[in-house]
Amino acid sequence: MMNPSIALIGLGLIGGSMAIALQGFENYEIVGVDRDPTTLSFARKHHVADRVTDDAETAVAQADLVFLCLHPRGIVDFMSAHRDGFRPGCLVTDVCGIKTAIVRGSSVLPDSVDFIGGHPMAGKETSGITHADGTLFHEAHYILTPRPTSTPEHLALMARIAAHIGCRDVVKTTVEQHDNIIAYTSQAMHIMAVAVCDDPDLFTCRGFEGGSFRDCTRVAALDVPLWTELFSMNRGALSTVIRHLEENLHAYRMVLESGDPAALAEKLAYSAARKRRMNLE
Amino acid sequence: MMNPSIALIGLGLIGGSMAIALQGFENYEIVGVDRDPTTLSFARKHHVADRVTDDAETAVAQADLVFLCLHPRGIVDFMSAHRDGFRPGCLVTDVCGIKTAIVRGSSVLPDSVDFIGGHPMAGKETSGITHADGTLFHEAHYILTPRPTSTPEHLALMARIAAHIGCRDVVKTTVEQHDNIIAYTSQAMHIMAVAVCDDPDLFTCRGFEGGSFRDCTRVAALDVPLWTELFSMNRGALSTVIRHLEENLHAYRMVLESGDPAALAEKLAYSAARKRRMNLE
Repeated sequence: MMNPSIALIGLGLIGGSMAIALQGFENYEIVGVDRDPTTLSFARKHHVADRVTDDAETAVAQADLVFLCLHPRGIVDFMSAHRDGFRPGCLVTDVCGIKTAIVRGSSVLPDSVDFIGGHPMAGKETSGITHADGTLFHEAHYILTPRPTSTPEHLALMARIAAHIGCRDVVKTTVEQHDNIIAYTSQAMHIMAVAVCDDPDLFTCRGFEGGSFRDCTRVAALDVPLWTELFSMNRGALSTVIRHLEENLHAYRMVLESGDPAALAEKLAYSAARKRRMNLE
Repeated sequence: MMNPSIALIGLGLIGGSMAIALQGFENYEIVGVDRDPTTLSFARKHHVADRVTDDAETAVAQADLVFLCLHPRGIVDFMSAHRDGFRPGCLVTDVCGIKTAIVRGSSVLPDSVDFIGGHPMAGKETSGITHADGTLFHEAHYILTPRPTSTPEHLALMARIAAHIGCRDVVKTTVEQHDNIIAYTSQAMHIMAVAVCDDPDLFTCRGFEGGSFRDCTRVAALDVPLWTELFSMNRGALSTVIRHLEENLHAYRMVLESGDPAALAEKLAYSAARKRRMNLE
């Protein structure tokens, strides 16, 4: 009898890192799939997976679990193109930073295929397999958006995977809640980072950067096609969070310009206490 | 003949870290000065300096170099109170994140005392001697604002100190340029961090934080009295930078709400290229 297998579709930063991190998971064979010859040859040379191939059809037909690690639209297109090619009883999951559009796209899958949306909250400001890193998911939250019909066996499998790759915990939620919150905790942080880099003083500030500047702008050198899709597919929620940020910055500017240090101190104490409470709880 | 000595006035996070980092610097005796008995006893127990004392007058009278490591107003007040107590020929410096008000305050010093404003660009989101860390300044920029009359010997001394404590480089500038740029690279990053924590969703987002959120809000649990002074004393420059940020965020929201992915991609590509250029040069 053949060992069960996990197929990773797309060996970019996340797919490649997931393939490395998954190696040694129970008795599963880890199969990496990509269309790009350079990516495949790098993956083969660095043993990113137990086996690598450009034959998505065969890999999908044999896999017990399929990880879709493409850009958002690529994931939706792949499910549509391969809807009848998945093995009955298998589980399909993804690693995408938005969930509504992905889970909607998963409705093309036949009833014999389970789908659990996934978002391991890890990343880097770089992309591509050459930056893949098996420790990328250490201490990260692994967010899952199961279907009402997802089986306990499939949920348990995802939990064992999350533990194997070193995640801090598994958080189950709905697609709507995921996308609303991620607009705040991830997408808006990326918008802030790029907005900071639009300041006319950017290039004159060399020699004056401290830790807070490096941390805040770290993610600004982002993968433009990927983030254009992520932002566009979550436009409503993200727009609301950016508006809140504009308002909160404006409120700080007003109290600063009022020249009242007591009012500024009170406002800072309020925000700093919220951050401390966030750290402690 | 006695060894030369360096007196550190104020053994908080920065003064304590500087004292530890300075140990072993040439043949200087490192003298830590603080008024708080708990701080002094901690400093003595952990050998933060070669000698610790609450007698600022004697330490200042004997010191060849005095590091003022108090809050901004405390530095100005200390120079005023001890104006006639410094040893003729000595150098006074500080570690404060703003320079205009400090250097203006240094005008009370007699002509026999040199003053070079200093800002080692390092910090932590904590305060107090218990968090002092001798590696705090590793790879940091050390910014100096010398007087036109500052001696080459004193500038060379500061450069050797910067090297001893592990700084990346020494950057010389004017007080005005320092305060304008620091409003952007440090102060505005702190305002953004607290503004992010004012979002109504802060406490519902637990389980959904990734690296970008942790990085961007790291400094939000700030020392309120210290930062109230720093922000207030640089109100004009900081207000301008916050306004730019509001405008840049607003511009991103407008292109997002327009629903034009090509325009969003173009804007993201512009900002990301600026960040990459900043990283490379």
